[in-house]
Amino acid sequence: MTITERYADPSATLGVVNDVLSVQLAHRSVRRFRPDPVDDSRLHAIIAAAQSAPTSSNLQPWSVVAVRDPARRKRLAALANNQSFIEQAPLFLVWIADLGRAHRLAARHEAPLEAADYLETTIIGFVDTALAAQNAVVAAESLGLGTVFVGAIRNNPLEVAAELGLPEHTVATFGLAIGTPDPVETAGIKPRIPQAAVLHHETYDAETADAHLTGYDESLADYNRRHGLEGDWSSRVLTRLAGVPSLHGREKLRDHLRTRGLPSR
Amino acid sequence: MTITERYADPSATLGVVNDVLSVQLAHRSVRRFRPDPVDDSRLHAIIAAAQSAPTSSNLQPWSVVAVRDPARRKRLAALANNQSFIEQAPLFLVWIADLGRAHRLAARHEAPLEAADYLETTIIGFVDTALAAQNAVVAAESLGLGTVFVGAIRNNPLEVAAELGLPEHTVATFGLAIGTPDPVETAGIKPRIPQAAVLHHETYDAETADAHLTGYDESLADYNRRHGLEGDWSSRVLTRLAGVPSLHGREKLRDHLRTRGLPSR
Repeated sequence: MTITERYADPSATLGVVNDVLSVQLAHRSVRRFRPDPVDDSRLHAIIAAAQSAPTSSNLQPWSVVAVRDPARRKRLAALANNQSFIEQAPLFLVWIADLGRAHRLAARHEAPLEAADYLETTIIGFVDTALAAQNAVVAAESLGLGTVFVGAIRNNPLEVAAELGLPEHTVATFGLAIGTPDPVETAGIKPRIPQAAVLHHETYDAETADAHLTGYDESLADYNRRHGLEGDWSSRVLTRLAGVPSLHGREKLRDHLRTRGLPSR
Repeated sequence: MTITERYADPSATLGVVNDVLSVQLAHRSVRRFRPDPVDDSRLHAIIAAAQSAPTSSNLQPWSVVAVRDPARRKRLAALANNQSFIEQAPLFLVWIADLGRAHRLAARHEAPLEAADYLETTIIGFVDTALAAQNAVVAAESLGLGTVFVGAIRNNPLEVAAELGLPEHTVATFGLAIGTPDPVETAGIKPRIPQAAVLHHETYDAETADAHLTGYDESLADYNRRHGLEGDWSSRVLTRLAGVPSLHGREKLRDHLRTRGLPSR
């Protein structure tokens, strides 16, 4: 059962179950794809699911660029840390935090749009894009497709904007590679932190929560070993967040947002 | 069929369908709840679904506080624009962008965590929290529950942090009210912008996309009229983003994040 893998706990159970939960719990990132195309009927269903996600004040502050052209996927891969699955997946969706639509609307009405310049609105752009994109992930997986998010699209946001012809007041938030999983890839369901470490009741209890991390470090080190990787959760988090070099250019995100017309003050 | 309501287009169809897509497409925000409690088995399934969402580098930079205490829900409602459904819903989840877990880990290891101070990492916190929370929404709806997000939790992030005992380097991103929908509420499936206005192929085409907004303004004005509301999409967006007053304190988000230990430089 996937719940036991999700928590690396043979005794884990779920008191309720249905097809939706089964798809969600079985999620894993797919990084090897078969060449079979994702046709328009599936793409349209995936985007309809994305648009059905909640959005703050119905602003709908996002757009998505579907990239199928192999040459463009190759150029995007080069801008996003050379991750080969961007070239391999038949469909690469670039999710755009889009305040441009509202700015163009305001320009047509000669209306002010001062609230768009605050970090709050930039955050709404990223959050609403993420809510939509997660619905897209679940929709794609329900159709038998595999996916993986690509945060490295933020390594070079200005070059990505030029490649996709993005207008002012928009920025690429992350990519999503989609395709048929190649069965040669053996990645499994990655164990997460025990639920008792992330779910608090009434108030946040750091001591109780953090006590679960030792056991989790062992579970994740086991999982990594079985999949040819090294390290436990703690060591990987500390490496990932140690300093600026691991941000691969994303330490300039604030400046890049300003350049893209999202001053985020 | 929900797809025709979603796009306010009687001719809209989906070429593929399954139980997952059906739940996603039927989403609506619920703002009136029955008092029936959400039991632990459903809460645990909802959080397991949330934890199954993708997360950047497996950082899992979020936590969630489940609030059932009516007095605490009442105090949170007062901090979040007095939205009465926060008091009414039996379960209110406050989603936390949580860099505190990593900071405490670094402190225990006397390790640096410099990358945590950049806007990029704050954005990862908000985005990964949103990915998880959207899985929670879909899981809850698959179990027959209704939900609504509460961005107004960001109106007073310092007071919310005090109420929930949040440690340093954490901030409440949004709330999520969950409960059994009260059938007296008549809200329907809100039409979204036509798919052709948000989905671009290969490159972003603003002119073609924006040409769809006039028809959407008419659809949304119709929908609003049927549900006792006023205005089309354009007028509501321009009102929402006109100036600082409509941000209700959220214009200080950048300062508040710094105070919470998320300098977002």
